[in-house]
Amino acid sequence: MIVILKEHPNQKQLENLKAWLTSMGLAIHESDGVNHQILGLVGDTSKVDIDLIQALDIVDDVKRIQEPYKNANRKFHPLDTVVAAGDAKVGGGHFSVIAGPCSVESEAQIIGVAKSVKAAGATMLRGGAFKPRTSPYAFQGLRAEGIRLLLEAKQETGLPIVTEIMDLSQLELFDEVDVIQVGARNMQNFEMLKELGHLRKPILLKRGLANTLQELLMSAEYIMSGGNEQIILCERGIRTFETYTRNTMDISAIPALKTLTHLPVIADPSHATGRSAMVRPMALAATAAGADGLIIEVHNDPQHALCDGPQSQTEAEFADTMKQILRVRALLTEDDGGKNG
Amino acid sequence: MIVILKEHPNQKQLENLKAWLTSMGLAIHESDGVNHQILGLVGDTSKVDIDLIQALDIVDDVKRIQEPYKNANRKFHPLDTVVAAGDAKVGGGHFSVIAGPCSVESEAQIIGVAKSVKAAGATMLRGGAFKPRTSPYAFQGLRAEGIRLLLEAKQETGLPIVTEIMDLSQLELFDEVDVIQVGARNMQNFEMLKELGHLRKPILLKRGLANTLQELLMSAEYIMSGGNEQIILCERGIRTFETYTRNTMDISAIPALKTLTHLPVIADPSHATGRSAMVRPMALAATAAGADGLIIEVHNDPQHALCDGPQSQTEAEFADTMKQILRVRALLTEDDGGKNG
Amino acid sequence: MIVILKEHPNQKQLENLKAWLTSMGLAIHESDGVNHQILGLVGDTSKVDIDLIQALDIVDDVKRIQEPYKNANRKFHPLDTVVAAGDAKVGGGHFSVIAGPCSVESEAQIIGVAKSVKAAGATMLRGGAFKPRTSPYAFQGLRAEGIRLLLEAKQETGLPIVTEIMDLSQLELFDEVDVIQVGARNMQNFEMLKELGHLRKPILLKRGLANTLQELLMSAEYIMSGGNEQIILCERGIRTFETYTRNTMDISAIPALKTLTHLPVIADPSHATGRSAMVRPMALAATAAGADGLIIEVHNDPQHALCDGPQSQTEAEFADTMKQILRVRALLTEDDGGKNG
Amino acid sequence: MIVILKEHPNQKQLENLKAWLTSMGLAIHESDGVNHQILGLVGDTSKVDIDLIQALDIVDDVKRIQEPYKNANRKFHPLDTVVAAGDAKVGGGHFSVIAGPCSVESEAQIIGVAKSVKAAGATMLRGGAFKPRTSPYAFQGLRAEGIRLLLEAKQETGLPIVTEIMDLSQLELFDEVDVIQVGARNMQNFEMLKELGHLRKPILLKRGLANTLQELLMSAEYIMSGGNEQIILCERGIRTFETYTRNTMDISAIPALKTLTHLPVIADPSHATGRSAMVRPMALAATAAGADGLIIEVHNDPQHALCDGPQSQTEAEFADTMKQILRVRALLTEDDGGKNG
Repeated sequence: MIVILKEHPNQKQLENLKAWLTSMGLAIHESDGVNHQILGLVGDTSKVDIDLIQALDIVDDVKRIQEPYKNANRKFHPLDTVVAAGDAKVGGGHFSVIAGPCSVESEAQIIGVAKSVKAAGATMLRGGAFKPRTSPYAFQGLRAEGIRLLLEAKQETGLPIVTEIMDLSQLELFDEVDVIQVGARNMQNFEMLKELGHLRKPILLKRGLANTLQELLMSAEYIMSGGNEQIILCERGIRTFETYTRNTMDISAIPALKTLTHLPVIADPSHATGRSAMVRPMALAATAAGADGLIIEVHNDPQHALCDGPQSQTEAEFADTMKQILRVRALLTEDDGGKNG
Repeated sequence: MIVILKEHPNQKQLENLKAWLTSMGLAIHESDGVNHQILGLVGDTSKVDIDLIQALDIVDDVKRIQEPYKNANRKFHPLDTVVAAGDAKVGGGHFSVIAGPCSVESEAQIIGVAKSVKAAGATMLRGGAFKPRTSPYAFQGLRAEGIRLLLEAKQETGLPIVTEIMDLSQLELFDEVDVIQVGARNMQNFEMLKELGHLRKPILLKRGLANTLQELLMSAEYIMSGGNEQIILCERGIRTFETYTRNTMDISAIPALKTLTHLPVIADPSHATGRSAMVRPMALAATAAGADGLIIEVHNDPQHALCDGPQSQTEAEFADTMKQILRVRALLTEDDGGKNG
Repeated sequence: MIVILKEHPNQKQLENLKAWLTSMGLAIHESDGVNHQILGLVGDTSKVDIDLIQALDIVDDVKRIQEPYKNANRKFHPLDTVVAAGDAKVGGGHFSVIAGPCSVESEAQIIGVAKSVKAAGATMLRGGAFKPRTSPYAFQGLRAEGIRLLLEAKQETGLPIVTEIMDLSQLELFDEVDVIQVGARNMQNFEMLKELGHLRKPILLKRGLANTLQELLMSAEYIMSGGNEQIILCERGIRTFETYTRNTMDISAIPALKTLTHLPVIADPSHATGRSAMVRPMALAATAAGADGLIIEVHNDPQHALCDGPQSQTEAEFADTMKQILRVRALLTEDDGGKNG
Repeated sequence: MIVILKEHPNQKQLENLKAWLTSMGLAIHESDGVNHQILGLVGDTSKVDIDLIQALDIVDDVKRIQEPYKNANRKFHPLDTVVAAGDAKVGGGHFSVIAGPCSVESEAQIIGVAKSVKAAGATMLRGGAFKPRTSPYAFQGLRAEGIRLLLEAKQETGLPIVTEIMDLSQLELFDEVDVIQVGARNMQNFEMLKELGHLRKPILLKRGLANTLQELLMSAEYIMSGGNEQIILCERGIRTFETYTRNTMDISAIPALKTLTHLPVIADPSHATGRSAMVRPMALAATAAGADGLIIEVHNDPQHALCDGPQSQTEAEFADTMKQILRVRALLTEDDGGKNG
């Protein structure tokens, strides 16, 4: 961390600052510029509150050199984390596709889709029981009953299940859920993140619509600081000025995150684009960019889906997309002699 | 609502669609273009799920003509809503300034600041007990103890208090809190909004960092659909590419919201800019643009604040800013012969 | 086009509006809602100025149903346009990689890079002669001399050359240039677009940093309305709040543009990311998403490049990337039985 | 400037780097962290190409401490620049309102509007002769004839005129124009900026839709590096995800720019919002935030304006707005004892 002082700082205040920094176990290297005196802080600065320093009268600016996350940082944990759920693995060379409907609607629907996506090669089943909807007048999900139906589909097919939690009060319903999804709108629901950190169960953490990669990693850090290290990160589109697609899918987040962290990174082309015709090309793009997996919406009858119909693939489209995904994936892996995912 | 059909729609599917729309109490006006056949839907479309229609094979596009919110819509409720908390009123010509520290830190601090902002003209006291912080290693607030200290400050000064809830499990601690703040990160925490809709207590609803005005109004609609109509909307900056300020304060949201809704609209120049030197000009700008109030961070010792120091004004700066705010406000009101806020 | 009238419109003004619309050859279909009377305009509305109608007192809103571009619209020209430059072709199943240094620096450099990228499989040579630099103190390019050196490299290798024009006064220097590049900052330099419309030479039109797909297509329409239909569109990253990458590469723009227009679409992973380590994954992603080609910065000595070094690949990295690009491309094409690019 | 080295840098390369930096007249202060060795560069770094250093193998990151603009920097030129055009002055305590139609349409129109805005208190006349329009099918302005009519209006009223240049080939037509406007789309048309730097005539430089404050100041630096220091900066809205307003007016840019530079700063509420009903509140907000002036679209007949009708005020609305602007301005000035603008 570099602290740039204002010109002619009050010497008393400067001594206080230096004493405080030293008391936190940091060494200080001073250097004098023409216009600026600079303090270089050496040591573990990940727990230093940058805002506190920036508030001081004598400080012009503070710049971080080290990332503010530690547990999630590849620099300190160079080996890929592998997240396991049932038989499915994600990360460290393992590739997984999670598929299923936007919302769980009925027993027949969820079991039907589960069988069909399994046959096509998906390794986990997704389905919404609690649905975040912009309008209070839109369908809000089957809730507890939805989770019950997902567990039935799991029983029937053996696929581990992934479903979203919207509030901590729902947590006990998630006991048998294999992977708990934290949606984009809850990426910075810090009370929820802390609580999920006490579990020993995989968390699928989606990037918020307007959150930087660093903020996503800080949210992972919240969970990890509680001891839960089974986290899958998910790029699902960010909000920009472009309105043709629902969001702008930031494919470059995939190689960026793979560099910054050891956690597995997957992508959600369905929510990112909001258009079923774009799911296939964007799924292939994410795979080619090095994603450790995908999460794709598939519906037995997208035209009558109770939500997000426009972005769901049919079962036939998914089977076709899945074949291409696996071929692109194979091509990447063979290039690496199988070393990389 | 306008439904634009694809060329040569399947007639059977079209009949089904029309039957379904009619069953929802909507009348249908058809018109034929050169390339497009169009259905105009007449009636209450606020509860029609636009996604459902968009998903149909025969539909090219759907465009809303009527806003999807009803309770919050000025078209249906032309008179300004006045929100009252203790002696303070916001909206309908009433102007209120909420001031106080980012975090409650100690009894002496919160009571000291409360007295000083009251003397300067503030009508409510703010202070964070539960603090949303990007880093798990940053100060997270005094929590229950913070609320206790706020209530002491209220007792001491008579100022109604405004503080943020971060999770529904904290709700019972808010019994004596006058105004519950929903922070930007929780603007679309729909489970929380629904629950707050069952209260009969003012809610200060902050716009999310990447949320449109329409989404803000839909979140207000969530609360109102539960019966709670005491909502204050708050512009606090949106996320853009500009990095000089922490966020970009969207002052135009103020006149825009005043047109779209009858709810009061206030602005938060402290969080929007993240720089104390910009609080005064932006507070004046928001007032000049017609805000019904402001929320401003004030600290007795900003240099040692436990969070967000850089954006807090000192007590002296606030007193000076307050004078100017009231003069700009008076100028606007007198132009309207006192009718408008 | 749909014109939504305000409640109780002045009847005289309404008659005037209808007469004016009719005089433009449009038929009018009227329909009455509960709150809104609506005019549906039928005919060629691409030349109707939406702003003019929106300005009328009696009009509440105007919504386009038909896209405002015509020559660039796939609806009216379903067959893919193929752009040819020397032996290279782009679009309609033809895939081309344009490679070369950010700036032309010397004869040895540009000829050396040209030979090396040709050997690796590139079909066109890029190189900047006129360089748009944010700072007036940064290297501005070799200008006329740069173009002379590019033409030498073309002579030496047979590769057609692509280089950027920054002002119309430079146009005569571009006589022997094969493809004229319009940079992101000039995408809406309408005087330039009009002038380039009078040429019969391929134009590489880059999407502006903050421009929508529709605006990009309107800029293509400017060129096409002058008669020049040889246009290659290029996605090169848009500006968002994320700062880890220089820009956010909008890969979804590729399938979106391929749907909206018949013009070929390529992608520039070098400028989009600003980081050489991300060029390979993003080049593969763009190819997998269906791009008709790529433009990649390659330098013989990126560490001493006079500009944009951090985003350039070395010649060896490019050769390796090129192999993988062609394999992903082959996989896509074979899936289509060779029909699609 | 701070150069952060990678771990274990090649010592030979490091010596080369240090030699090169020293040869540019910079002193180097080295400091060693736990993970990072750091070079602090002391001296005039405004002309150091940050990209060049960032490209080096041994460099992890480079951070600027000093702003990269010099002539425009308030640190080096603390006194406000006053820009004068005819009798009008902007900056250094002088406040000017520029008003007039979007496009010059006829002699009667421009002279009529000129007289009316002058009577209301405007000190300069604006009017578009060359019009940047997104669609090639929209009205493109009266061009040379438009400038002739503006000069007539100047003759008639004495108001200095402000009009936009779209291409350098038009420059000779601007001989008698008092202030040349560089539109948002040309903010980074560097060839144009360089040429305008050779004039000795005020330039009104509008911020681009997606440009940072630093980029705006770098564009001013382009003009100033040619010797022309008569520059007025103009905030006119940036592009964000919000679609209710045409752009998002960044009012905070006003106090921010006033801190960073000595150049005058004005605001354009008409283009920023695109809605005439929002011009008044946003004009007042900009004034309250400390702007040195405003530029406002006024039309004698906004309903039949050939472009941008929806955002123009009528002459009566402008006169009313003008009164309020001057009252807010007076209030600010009197607070400063008249010292500040």
